[in-house]
Amino acid sequence: MTGNVTDIKSSWVDMIYHLQDTICHALESADGKASFREDLWDRPEGGGGRTRVISGGDVFEKGGVNISVVHGNVTDTMRSQLKINGASWFACGLSLVLHPVNPFVPTVHANYRMFELYDESGLLIDRWFGGGTDLTPYYLFEEDAIHFHKVYQKMCNQYDPAYYPLFKKQCDDYFVNTHRNQERRGIGGIFYDYQKPVAGKDVWHWFNFGKDCGHAFLDAYLPIVEKRRSIVFNDKHKHWQEIRRGRYVEFNLVHDRGTIFGLKTNGRTESILMSLPPTVRFEYDHKPEPGSAEDELLQVCLHPKDWLGNVISEEDRIAWASKSNSC
Amino acid sequence: MTGNVTDIKSSWVDMIYHLQDTICHALESADGKASFREDLWDRPEGGGGRTRVISGGDVFEKGGVNISVVHGNVTDTMRSQLKINGASWFACGLSLVLHPVNPFVPTVHANYRMFELYDESGLLIDRWFGGGTDLTPYYLFEEDAIHFHKVYQKMCNQYDPAYYPLFKKQCDDYFVNTHRNQERRGIGGIFYDYQKPVAGKDVWHWFNFGKDCGHAFLDAYLPIVEKRRSIVFNDKHKHWQEIRRGRYVEFNLVHDRGTIFGLKTNGRTESILMSLPPTVRFEYDHKPEPGSAEDELLQVCLHPKDWLGNVISEEDRIAWASKSNSC
Repeated sequence: MTGNVTDIKSSWVDMIYHLQDTICHALESADGKASFREDLWDRPEGGGGRTRVISGGDVFEKGGVNISVVHGNVTDTMRSQLKINGASWFACGLSLVLHPVNPFVPTVHANYRMFELYDESGLLIDRWFGGGTDLTPYYLFEEDAIHFHKVYQKMCNQYDPAYYPLFKKQCDDYFVNTHRNQERRGIGGIFYDYQKPVAGKDVWHWFNFGKDCGHAFLDAYLPIVEKRRSIVFNDKHKHWQEIRRGRYVEFNLVHDRGTIFGLKTNGRTESILMSLPPTVRFEYDHKPEPGSAEDELLQVCLHPKDWLGNVISEEDRIAWASKSNSC
Repeated sequence: MTGNVTDIKSSWVDMIYHLQDTICHALESADGKASFREDLWDRPEGGGGRTRVISGGDVFEKGGVNISVVHGNVTDTMRSQLKINGASWFACGLSLVLHPVNPFVPTVHANYRMFELYDESGLLIDRWFGGGTDLTPYYLFEEDAIHFHKVYQKMCNQYDPAYYPLFKKQCDDYFVNTHRNQERRGIGGIFYDYQKPVAGKDVWHWFNFGKDCGHAFLDAYLPIVEKRRSIVFNDKHKHWQEIRRGRYVEFNLVHDRGTIFGLKTNGRTESILMSLPPTVRFEYDHKPEPGSAEDELLQVCLHPKDWLGNVISEEDRIAWASKSNSC
């Protein structure tokens, strides 16, 4: 068991390092101008990370592809806020956010992580996986939304046909500015958390699912970048992008569990807040003109669509959820 | 008692309406170009407000002077998050935030409020007052900081010489980006909360203290506006202002109790978020050059100063705090 645990842990860490390299290399090639700046950091309480940020590119105005490999004792805050019981923990994951210059190129976010919990003697008592990728366009191109979702549907279907509809819905349900009439921050993607082995799905099932979804990011996102990066935009488009970026800030700082928890528990602030957009506008009571391209985007954020028209029934969803080991 | 309660409640509401008129009138005169837009709103659960926002002015790029007169039943969220026990409540206050165009003119915030709590039969069981005014400059002019603090010290001294040092410290302790090495959002002012009658200080003491501090705002702020509004600024100054505005956003969305509570309990989002600056920048690991004017400002945010050199001893502070009825 211990050997097995070590295998999974070190294999996941290796996978995450490799994923960061692969993604950064592809993004630099796509950008063609900017390259990533790397900051290695140590966490005083244990572990550290490799933060890579990009700015001032031809495509990417600001972005980061960060990994962290951290561990520590379970604190009172973790016990009360995360309902975590154990003596110590380990976490390793990759988190990326890219804010493009061009308002016709969407912002994108991805995060893939593994969490382990140990008892007083250091024995593994729990382990789970989480992750997701979601797209935040400023202007809606339905074919882009369909392409993005199709990549993840295909990936999910290789593991379980129930995953895509479930994780798509979980994504729509998570990235929500509840204080803005349930407005989603974008057109979704997939989101899953607390996934553990169940009958027929061992730990490697979830390991490989995270790995494959992580690598699918480039297929999901880069074709959209290539299609939209050369569209001519004006101040009006940039203005709308900055208004929507304001909503991104609101979600990340008010609602995102990872961001808030990180900021309140002495996480590395600069790495956590690399997710915030470079330039942002907040205007009182801003409303796009009904029927405009801006309003079209807003409407799909208010009313999430099943882009692939392939909806699992509510009964199947509940049946699957009750089988799964989520907490 | 009931008559008395009604007097205080209606007098406070009248005072708040009058304060909004006085402040808005003076700010429009100072701006000389923009005027306030007024939105009246109803709160579905009870009460409403009068939101007044200004934008595109000669002095004020964006701002709001809002009042709300709201009431409702005590909810589970209030019980758990605010530790409030009672059947119903009433609150009335004014909240203002002004974001000037010119980076040499500071941003300012003020809030004065009264809260009442009733039992099942509608009888008053508790009442408290809170408030404060704090200044957020982008460049430090010591004489402005001293002027601003002196106005509130003078006002406090008319009520109790212990107030200014205590409320000044509470302000320094409240407006803090704890996730940024305890960086304050500005150079402080005063902040007090949960103030109730104690021996020698009846309810009118706190009523009048809030009223006088509210009216002192114009004396504290407008002379600074007049002194700094015509200083020539360039893109570098504006850039720094937008970086610091980012910290303002971080404080308001991550730490400010009123903002978070409002957003999570169906407050009027547009009125709450009028506090956010019009244009903002977030840059990875931004650090001003050591010894620069930008760094000088940052240093006083990291290490709050006693601007008036008139510090109350820690013993006096503790003695006074133990006499006061804070909860």
